[in-house]
Amino acid sequence: MADLRHVKALIYDVFGTCVDWRSGVARDVAAIAKAKGLTFDPIAFADAWRARYQPSMETVRSGQRPWTILDALHRESLVSLLPQFGLAGKLSENEIDDLNRAWHRLDPWPDTVPGLTRLKRKYIIAPHSNGNFALLLNMAKHAGIPWDCILGSETVKNYKPVPASYLEAVRLLGLKPENVMMVAAHNRDLRAAQALGLCTGFVPRPYEHGPNQTTDLAPDGAWDVVARDHEDLAAKMGT
Amino acid sequence: MADLRHVKALIYDVFGTCVDWRSGVARDVAAIAKAKGLTFDPIAFADAWRARYQPSMETVRSGQRPWTILDALHRESLVSLLPQFGLAGKLSENEIDDLNRAWHRLDPWPDTVPGLTRLKRKYIIAPHSNGNFALLLNMAKHAGIPWDCILGSETVKNYKPVPASYLEAVRLLGLKPENVMMVAAHNRDLRAAQALGLCTGFVPRPYEHGPNQTTDLAPDGAWDVVARDHEDLAAKMGT
Repeated sequence: MADLRHVKALIYDVFGTCVDWRSGVARDVAAIAKAKGLTFDPIAFADAWRARYQPSMETVRSGQRPWTILDALHRESLVSLLPQFGLAGKLSENEIDDLNRAWHRLDPWPDTVPGLTRLKRKYIIAPHSNGNFALLLNMAKHAGIPWDCILGSETVKNYKPVPASYLEAVRLLGLKPENVMMVAAHNRDLRAAQALGLCTGFVPRPYEHGPNQTTDLAPDGAWDVVARDHEDLAAKMGT
Repeated sequence: MADLRHVKALIYDVFGTCVDWRSGVARDVAAIAKAKGLTFDPIAFADAWRARYQPSMETVRSGQRPWTILDALHRESLVSLLPQFGLAGKLSENEIDDLNRAWHRLDPWPDTVPGLTRLKRKYIIAPHSNGNFALLLNMAKHAGIPWDCILGSETVKNYKPVPASYLEAVRLLGLKPENVMMVAAHNRDLRAAQALGLCTGFVPRPYEHGPNQTTDLAPDGAWDVVARDHEDLAAKMGT
């Protein structure tokens, strides 16, 4: 196990770990469906949109396309989904842009802001998400998350779990890997960080994908801290 | 004049504008001089160090050397200054590193934190300094400056007043130039920002360089807002 007394910064996965993307996206999808007089399941829309998330980033990770920010990938995925939900040709470019910014307006889980507020007193706290800079910044302003700075994919020009993504975040902070804890609800993220020498903190989100979620229900690695939620993590980190 | 109702983010020069680099650097220089049994004027040391600031960045701006962060430039300048103050060979590498981080430990002017705390309620606030990421982040933690995110030279890989420095900061924020106000105690910084369409806010610091300062005592351009200090700027921006 890593020596947690060396930890100076906690960097966080965001979608799922800190905010509830599924309910938030579905809320904004439901609003536009209603405005257009359409009836479809907005949760199914949110799940379909999120299902294109990893494949869209993989085109960048693999070098198949040049660096592209998540807002642009999200928008392409959104446009490709419109026909199957009866929205083809029904949204203006401005309406598509606005719906795409649903990802900037996600709400935090109830424990996120209280836990991070406590941790901020002792540690540097920053999002290290695959979101782009403005997405993470606007989300923080909307949700009241008191980050010290914004890291994330656009700052490091790589998508997790590419190793350079974590190492560049550590370098920007002026720290060494053992001084930084990656916090996530996703075992894969922690596995990549741990392999590079970062500390790891697991915060489960068993309802991120709804009541029938089958993945990431429990830690599956030797993570340095396993906490119930962000308030429990704050307590376990001495704040 | 720009329409200030469009402003969504204020980005700040830091050295001089938000923090008192001269007293802060002199304080840390005085401590090491005392520890080494040397007597010299620590303010003269701080001024000599700062005098190498623009020339060191100019080697990067001109393309003479590749991208180099300010911590590295500061350290080179520091090492080159040691002989003239009787410190040649008297500091270990760790002591040099620690003294170099005096720039991470600068104190805010008395109006900085109260003013920025008010502005943060309505606007995105961020440092856009020539400091590197860790320098600006550590300074914020030390000084209690409640930035929403860290911009600055390392994030945009350019030193002000290169135009790309301002434009890349605006792009990262997901905004247009007219949505962003550059705030500085230095007319040159505002002139460069205004030429690119950013709004401008001047906050004078007539004692940045001590009691005999001759530069930047007053605004010398048609800046959108001229404020006495950061609290006055907060009031003038409706917060």
